[in-house]
Amino acid sequence: MISDAFWVNQDGRLTVGGCDTLALAREYGTPLYVMDESQIRVNCRNFLNAAYNGYDGESLPIFAGKSFLCKEMCRVIASEGFGLDVVSGGELYTAAAADFPREKIFFHGNNKSDAELTLALEENIGRIVVDNLPELRRLSSLAMSKNKTADILFRLKPGVDAHTHDFISTGQIDSKFGFAIETGEAFEAARTAAELPYINLCGIHCHIGSQIFEPEPYATATKVMLEFMLRVKKELGISFSDLNMGGGFGIKYKKSDTPPPFAAFLEAISETTRDFCDTHTLSLPRLLIEPGRSIAAPAGLTLYTVGSVKEIPGKRTYVIIDGGMADNPRYALYGAPYTVMAAQKANHPATQTVTLAGKCCESGDLIQEHTLLQAVAPGDLIAVLATGAYNYSMSSNYNRLPRPPVVMVENGKSRVIVRGETFEDIIRNDI
Amino acid sequence: MISDAFWVNQDGRLTVGGCDTLALAREYGTPLYVMDESQIRVNCRNFLNAAYNGYDGESLPIFAGKSFLCKEMCRVIASEGFGLDVVSGGELYTAAAADFPREKIFFHGNNKSDAELTLALEENIGRIVVDNLPELRRLSSLAMSKNKTADILFRLKPGVDAHTHDFISTGQIDSKFGFAIETGEAFEAARTAAELPYINLCGIHCHIGSQIFEPEPYATATKVMLEFMLRVKKELGISFSDLNMGGGFGIKYKKSDTPPPFAAFLEAISETTRDFCDTHTLSLPRLLIEPGRSIAAPAGLTLYTVGSVKEIPGKRTYVIIDGGMADNPRYALYGAPYTVMAAQKANHPATQTVTLAGKCCESGDLIQEHTLLQAVAPGDLIAVLATGAYNYSMSSNYNRLPRPPVVMVENGKSRVIVRGETFEDIIRNDI
Repeated sequence: MISDAFWVNQDGRLTVGGCDTLALAREYGTPLYVMDESQIRVNCRNFLNAAYNGYDGESLPIFAGKSFLCKEMCRVIASEGFGLDVVSGGELYTAAAADFPREKIFFHGNNKSDAELTLALEENIGRIVVDNLPELRRLSSLAMSKNKTADILFRLKPGVDAHTHDFISTGQIDSKFGFAIETGEAFEAARTAAELPYINLCGIHCHIGSQIFEPEPYATATKVMLEFMLRVKKELGISFSDLNMGGGFGIKYKKSDTPPPFAAFLEAISETTRDFCDTHTLSLPRLLIEPGRSIAAPAGLTLYTVGSVKEIPGKRTYVIIDGGMADNPRYALYGAPYTVMAAQKANHPATQTVTLAGKCCESGDLIQEHTLLQAVAPGDLIAVLATGAYNYSMSSNYNRLPRPPVVMVENGKSRVIVRGETFEDIIRNDI
Repeated sequence: MISDAFWVNQDGRLTVGGCDTLALAREYGTPLYVMDESQIRVNCRNFLNAAYNGYDGESLPIFAGKSFLCKEMCRVIASEGFGLDVVSGGELYTAAAADFPREKIFFHGNNKSDAELTLALEENIGRIVVDNLPELRRLSSLAMSKNKTADILFRLKPGVDAHTHDFISTGQIDSKFGFAIETGEAFEAARTAAELPYINLCGIHCHIGSQIFEPEPYATATKVMLEFMLRVKKELGISFSDLNMGGGFGIKYKKSDTPPPFAAFLEAISETTRDFCDTHTLSLPRLLIEPGRSIAAPAGLTLYTVGSVKEIPGKRTYVIIDGGMADNPRYALYGAPYTVMAAQKANHPATQTVTLAGKCCESGDLIQEHTLLQAVAPGDLIAVLATGAYNYSMSSNYNRLPRPPVVMVENGKSRVIVRGETFEDIIRNDI
C-alpha cells in the first residue's frame, strides 16, 4: 500500500482507520471523502520528531492549510502542537472559529487584501508573511491605524528550481511570489521594512516547489536563505529569529514513487543551518517548515460507486463513477497520478487497464487514465487513494454537484467533520 | 470589442449594460462577476431567429445550464422561450426553484444517479437523455415503480472529431459519453429500449465538441444521426420526433478569433436535415440545439483589482489581482484564451505584455500569460472579458476564498443575482 492508512481486511475489503470502506459507503453514501485521524497524527509526529531530533534550536512545523482545511482539521493539528499556515481571510476565519492558537498562525499569500491584513492584525496572529512592497506599505499603515506592531516574515525567492511540474515550482525567480534575492530586491525590501513604523521583520520564508523527492534542493535553498540572513545582519544590523523553509515534501501517490522519509528533508535543512550558523557564529534561528500534502494526502481516500463500464473496442475501457473533477480536479489540472482500487475486491488482481471517468458533463472529467484496476461492474465501490490533500480544498460545484461530506475515521469509528452539501446549499445565494 | 456587450465610454472607461465598470466595482467590490442581461437575450434571439428562419419543422434552442446557471438565469432563459439542459440533480433543483417550464427541461449526463432519475421523473421533465444501458435499465425500473413513462433521447457518438482541444471533443468514439453508432452499439440499445416497459425513445442527441469554428462538422454529424434515425425507422419501426445536435458553437475570446455567425451552424444542421428528410421521405424532426457558452460567455466579464505589479527582469511582468483560479480555473485547466483590459484606461494603448496572476497560493494560478495590457498600478481595475460561461459555474473555494457575487446589468441598472459568499458560508458545513 502507498500509505500505512490503508490495508485490506480478511474479506478482501479496503480498510481505513479500522473502518471497512464498504460500511462507510453504506452509511454515508458516495462520493465520500474519508480522512484517517491516526494517520494525520502519525504524519504530524514524524515531522515533530524529525524537527526535534535534528536541531538544537527552536523549531515549529506548520500545517499548510490550503491542502485541507476545516474546523476539525484545525483542532487535530493544534492538538499535535503544529502551527497553521493560512493563505486567506477564509482560512484565518476557519482557524479562529476552531480557536486555533493565534500565535502559531502564519498568514501567507501573494496578494492579501486590506480586509485580510486587518483581520490578521485584529486576531494577533503569529506572523504575516509579506510578499511585496505595496503590501508591506499597506500593512504598515493598517498597523499604525490600530497602534499594533506587525511581526512579519518576507517571502523570498531563493532562485532554486526544484524540477517539479511547471505549475507548482515556485522558488525560481520567474514566480509571482515574493522578493528575489539575486536581483537585490529582497535586500532593498528589508531596508525599507527596517525604516517602516509598526513593522517588525522577524525572518524570512521561501517555498521551493511541490512534490519534491530530493533533499538537496532544500539544502541549497537553506544556504541561500542563510546567506541573506547574514548579509542583513551585517549590513542592516537586523537579526532574524525565524527561518521558514516552506513545504513541498514529496509523497507516494503510486507504488513506483520513492520519496525519502520526511526526516531526510528536515536533516538537509537543519544540518545546513547548524553548519552555517557555526561557521558564521550566528545564533540558531527558529526553524519553521510547512508540510501540507505530506500530512493530509496520505491520510485520505475518496470512495465512489461505479455507474457503468464502457469498453470502447480497440480504444479503452471507461469505468464511470459518481464523482469526478468537481470533487477532484487534479487530473484535469495537472495530470496528477493516483492509485485506484476496487474497494470490495482489493485482494483481487488488478488486471484491467482502465480510464476512471467522472460524471461531469465534460470530456476532460477524468480521475486517472491507463490505470490498473480489478474487474468491476456497476454498483462496485472504487477507492482513489491519497486524496487527503487538494481534493476537498479544490472542490467546486461544477454542474451544480453538491460537495461530498468529509468523514474522519479512527479506531473503527467514523464521524462527519464536514457535512455534505445539500441542493438547498447549492441555491442558497441565488436570488 | 470581442462582444457587443462591452464598450468604452467618453471617459475611457469600460462599460457593460450601460454601467460604468468602475462604478460597479465601487458598489459591489471586486472580484465581481458581471452579466449583461440584454446581451444574453440578444444571443438567445439570434439562435431563435436562426432556428425559426432556416427550418420548416419545429425547433427548440435549449440553454446548456452547465455554462452558467442560477435561478435568475433560468428566469431570463425561460422568458426567451428557450429550453434548459440540466446535467445533475443540483441543476434540475435550481430550475425547479425558478419554476422553469418542466416540459422544456432536458436531463443530460453520463452517470445519473437513481436519486437524479427519480427527481427527473417526479418533476415530469421533457426528456431524459440516456447515456448507457445500465442507466436505461435503472430508468425503466424507476419509471415502472412510479407508473410513469419516461420520454427519452439517446446520447450518441456520431464519430465526428471536431478538431478542438482534446479535453472538450466529445463526439468521437473514444469518449465517456453515449452509445457509438459505428460499432452497432447504438442500434442494439434502441432495440433494447423498444422492448423495455415505461420507456419511450423519442429521439437522439449528440454533442461533437466545444468552441467549434466550422459549420461542416455539424453537417457531417447531422447526416450520421439522420442515417441512424432512418435505420431505426426501417428496421425497428420507430419514428423519432427529436433530433438534438447539441452545442459547441464557437465564440470570440480574442480579437483574432473568427467564429462564423451562429446562424451558419444552424443552417448546416437544418439544411442537411431538410435535404435528408426530403430524399428519404422522413417527416421533419423537432430540431434541438444546445448553446451554452455562446449565450452566456459573451455577456459576461469579471472585474478585479490590481494588488501589485512585479517586473521580473528579463523574464516577465506579473500583474497580480484579487481573484484567480478559484473564480476562473480555465487558464489553469485548458490554457484558455481571454481578452484582458484596464477597465479605467480602456482607451489607453495596450502596450505592456504581462502575465495576469491570481491571489491563490499556487504558481499555476494564472488567468492569462503573455497578454497585452495598458500600463497599470496597484488599485487599478482589470476586466477579463467573455467570462460569462464556465467561470462562476466552475468556481471553487480553493484557499477558502469566498465566491464573488454575480451582478446582472441592464440599461444602466445593476442587481445582484447571486450573492457573494461570506466567511460564514465557508465554514457553514464544518463541524
